[in-house]
Amino acid sequence: MPNPTAAMLVIGDEILSGRTRDSNAHHLARRLGEHGIDLREIRFVPDDADTIETAARELSARFDHLFTSGGIGPTHDDITADCIAAAGGVPIGVRADARAALQAHYEARGTELNEARLRMARIPEGATLIDNPVSAAPGFSLGNIHVMAGVPSIFAAMLDSVLPRLTHGTPLVSRSVILHRGEGDIAGPLGVLQADFPDLSIGSYPGHVSGTMAVSVVLRGTDAARLDVAVARLSEMFPELAQ
Amino acid sequence: MPNPTAAMLVIGDEILSGRTRDSNAHHLARRLGEHGIDLREIRFVPDDADTIETAARELSARFDHLFTSGGIGPTHDDITADCIAAAGGVPIGVRADARAALQAHYEARGTELNEARLRMARIPEGATLIDNPVSAAPGFSLGNIHVMAGVPSIFAAMLDSVLPRLTHGTPLVSRSVILHRGEGDIAGPLGVLQADFPDLSIGSYPGHVSGTMAVSVVLRGTDAARLDVAVARLSEMFPELAQ
Repeated sequence: MPNPTAAMLVIGDEILSGRTRDSNAHHLARRLGEHGIDLREIRFVPDDADTIETAARELSARFDHLFTSGGIGPTHDDITADCIAAAGGVPIGVRADARAALQAHYEARGTELNEARLRMARIPEGATLIDNPVSAAPGFSLGNIHVMAGVPSIFAAMLDSVLPRLTHGTPLVSRSVILHRGEGDIAGPLGVLQADFPDLSIGSYPGHVSGTMAVSVVLRGTDAARLDVAVARLSEMFPELAQ
Repeated sequence: MPNPTAAMLVIGDEILSGRTRDSNAHHLARRLGEHGIDLREIRFVPDDADTIETAARELSARFDHLFTSGGIGPTHDDITADCIAAAGGVPIGVRADARAALQAHYEARGTELNEARLRMARIPEGATLIDNPVSAAPGFSLGNIHVMAGVPSIFAAMLDSVLPRLTHGTPLVSRSVILHRGEGDIAGPLGVLQADFPDLSIGSYPGHVSGTMAVSVVLRGTDAARLDVAVARLSEMFPELAQ
């Protein structure tokens, strides 16, 4: 069976404006890889309701899972929950269990659960809550859309509670070798190797190693034995690897 | 006149698999901001021809500019030029000036311009070359699609030669203030401020400042005087800012 597929939707003006760098996408990519879920697209969009709703509808239809980050706080630009409800065609309102979690959190800190904070208890009908051990305001899964916070520590914690619920695939394993050759010199042999191993993904990434130009060749697949066979073939093509 | 809009398409399996972190998107976001071009979407896709072609067609239709990075090297997985030609509905082949640039570069280094390297001289019909001062293999602009390398130093150099050709808008300017309050406490006033200044984008980003929870409030717009008025209003709302 092929691995489940996934996309990510990163929501927020601050990344597109160049003010901040996202780190959640890289974290998600690594974690999904460990669980054998293939991340096929990452899309960054601004805090714009139509854009978020359209992207959520499209990506959740095309892939087995859609993970979102950002836009679930208490302020006016936190519109993700409403957009996902609209994309799913369901109503949204304050939910008792989400409200209770917020109430307990803020009471313990002597902080008022005001109208703005109460917005974080608005959950689309039929969703499953995603626990937020850091600041109580929950994420949620609505169908195959998993809505999580943008703050990296909370995103990571929410992902930890979502992943065990999902059907996992076969984790990708990889081998990489460094060749001190020009990419143009290895392109021909690599193309032959890729044709012989269509079940593997073979990529080459030029860069500097110890100050000289070199190419990292990365082979990825779900079958470690196949990778070893391909690496052996690579060593026949480039004898310096066998040393 | 509103600012020109742009999207970015980042091409390559290596980022989606979590192996590497992209840095070109953040670089592009900052540079476009300086030039008053509004980056509205960033999309990461794998080395898959249909996906690249479809995304290129969609994003180039929706925005004034589309910038791509990755997939223009000499190896089997470098398919961007072909996909962009297909998206533009034009043929692609080795072009004399691109070939000459590569030939000069490799001759100077005593390196053979073999078949794999010659692939980097394949340019869609009607495109304008983008100079590559680092490794000669050119990028190109086809209509409003600007195709650049994935290696960060080359991406940055190519962007430097493309940007002066484009119509610039009014650069966004920003002001930011730190409030040592909960985001839920400032959400109400911030919403009022946003409603009063619809021409500005006002965002709030919770985080830690000197070990305590704080919120960065960022105001962005094209008119510095309006930003100052909004910041003055913010200082009335939160008297600690006036100190």
